[in-house]
Amino acid sequence: MRNIRLLIEYEGTQYAGWQWQKNQKTIQETLSKAVERVVQEPVKMYGSSRTDSGVHALGQVANFKTTSAIPPEQLIRAINFYLPHDITVKDAADVMESFHARYDAQSKIYRYTLLNDWIRTSLNRNFCHVCGLLLNTDKMLDAAQYLIGTHDFTSFTTRALQERNRIRTIKRLEIAKEGKYILFTVEADGFLYNMVRTMVGTLIEVGRGKIMTENVRDILAARNRNLAGPTAPAKGLCLIEVKY
Amino acid sequence: MRNIRLLIEYEGTQYAGWQWQKNQKTIQETLSKAVERVVQEPVKMYGSSRTDSGVHALGQVANFKTTSAIPPEQLIRAINFYLPHDITVKDAADVMESFHARYDAQSKIYRYTLLNDWIRTSLNRNFCHVCGLLLNTDKMLDAAQYLIGTHDFTSFTTRALQERNRIRTIKRLEIAKEGKYILFTVEADGFLYNMVRTMVGTLIEVGRGKIMTENVRDILAARNRNLAGPTAPAKGLCLIEVKY
Repeated sequence: MRNIRLLIEYEGTQYAGWQWQKNQKTIQETLSKAVERVVQEPVKMYGSSRTDSGVHALGQVANFKTTSAIPPEQLIRAINFYLPHDITVKDAADVMESFHARYDAQSKIYRYTLLNDWIRTSLNRNFCHVCGLLLNTDKMLDAAQYLIGTHDFTSFTTRALQERNRIRTIKRLEIAKEGKYILFTVEADGFLYNMVRTMVGTLIEVGRGKIMTENVRDILAARNRNLAGPTAPAKGLCLIEVKY
Repeated sequence: MRNIRLLIEYEGTQYAGWQWQKNQKTIQETLSKAVERVVQEPVKMYGSSRTDSGVHALGQVANFKTTSAIPPEQLIRAINFYLPHDITVKDAADVMESFHARYDAQSKIYRYTLLNDWIRTSLNRNFCHVCGLLLNTDKMLDAAQYLIGTHDFTSFTTRALQERNRIRTIKRLEIAKEGKYILFTVEADGFLYNMVRTMVGTLIEVGRGKIMTENVRDILAARNRNLAGPTAPAKGLCLIEVKY
């Protein structure tokens, strides 16, 4: 039995997220069906991250087992032939039988794109959140320092009860200005449901002066979602890379 | 009577180009209707460039006359409110009564985006042409030198008979590699119908060795469209800037 690792790019706009759901179009189902048409047998597709509805990916990783003998490059071409154009397999490779896209992930990198302008964008409209308020990025950067490291992120998830272990380690949280864009890059060993979007929503509140920089430490310590800022919209979020 | 100059960004994917056409959705008509709802009177909208079906713009310029007293910033907000999100007015300004977006343009800058890879892209799929052939960009750059300057571009337009004067001046033609992308930036005093796309299509033929570098000079001299390469797809083209 071969174990194939896929690297996948997708625009999440038209999908109800990665994970299979009844009566909803998802990335996992669409990808699995395309793969099954190619390998001519049922497959179980394991994804590294269950991206939410509307969230994009440049570097989602998934794996599946198959008895098919089709070489990797041909697999890429054939799967892409059956996939709609908003999903693309960028790479395929044979990996050890033990490899699991989700359990073996060491860290994941997400990017959140914020357009800080009072006028929207047409060309980039599905890939950024537009915020017209005056934002102080220095304050946002100061506040972000409290989130880096190993913490209980209960205050930054909307489904705390579903996760027994709410402790995660943020290795990197960068905030960069590029013209009118503010780019948040976050690397962690894992993320709770809506965690990046709640962190970004909270940092926006810091940037506009609604939440004081030091309060972010207290919000984290309180383990109470009601204290953090709103969940920033899905369309600004993109899974950039999964490290193994 | 005020004369208002608009700066407009749009994704052309869903439109039959800029210019008004019967029974077809166009940028000019969609924009005019939104403006008319705001200023509450019929307007005549003059655009700097008649971009083709599927061609995008970051910096299209248009102007219209109106008796409305609405200040520019409010005009931007109100027009964008009525526009679909694939069209955005980025700026509005009162200009001299004599200003005409088309006749006063000194030069226009277009960018053509080519993804030189055998795997497509999902996130950027509406904004680039994907070409999987091995392309020699040095040869393309050499060939491009023959096109710079003042020439009769009859060989590079698909509607030569509709234009009495087919002489244009290309001030700049740059070819830059950015990762797997090849970006063509062309500035000219004006462009014939399909001119940028035919130049790019011809340079791709040079890059893959189907047309010799020096042949581009002969193709130009022959004033015969049949000698040039194919017209590159519209979705890779974007009107970047109009200079006055």
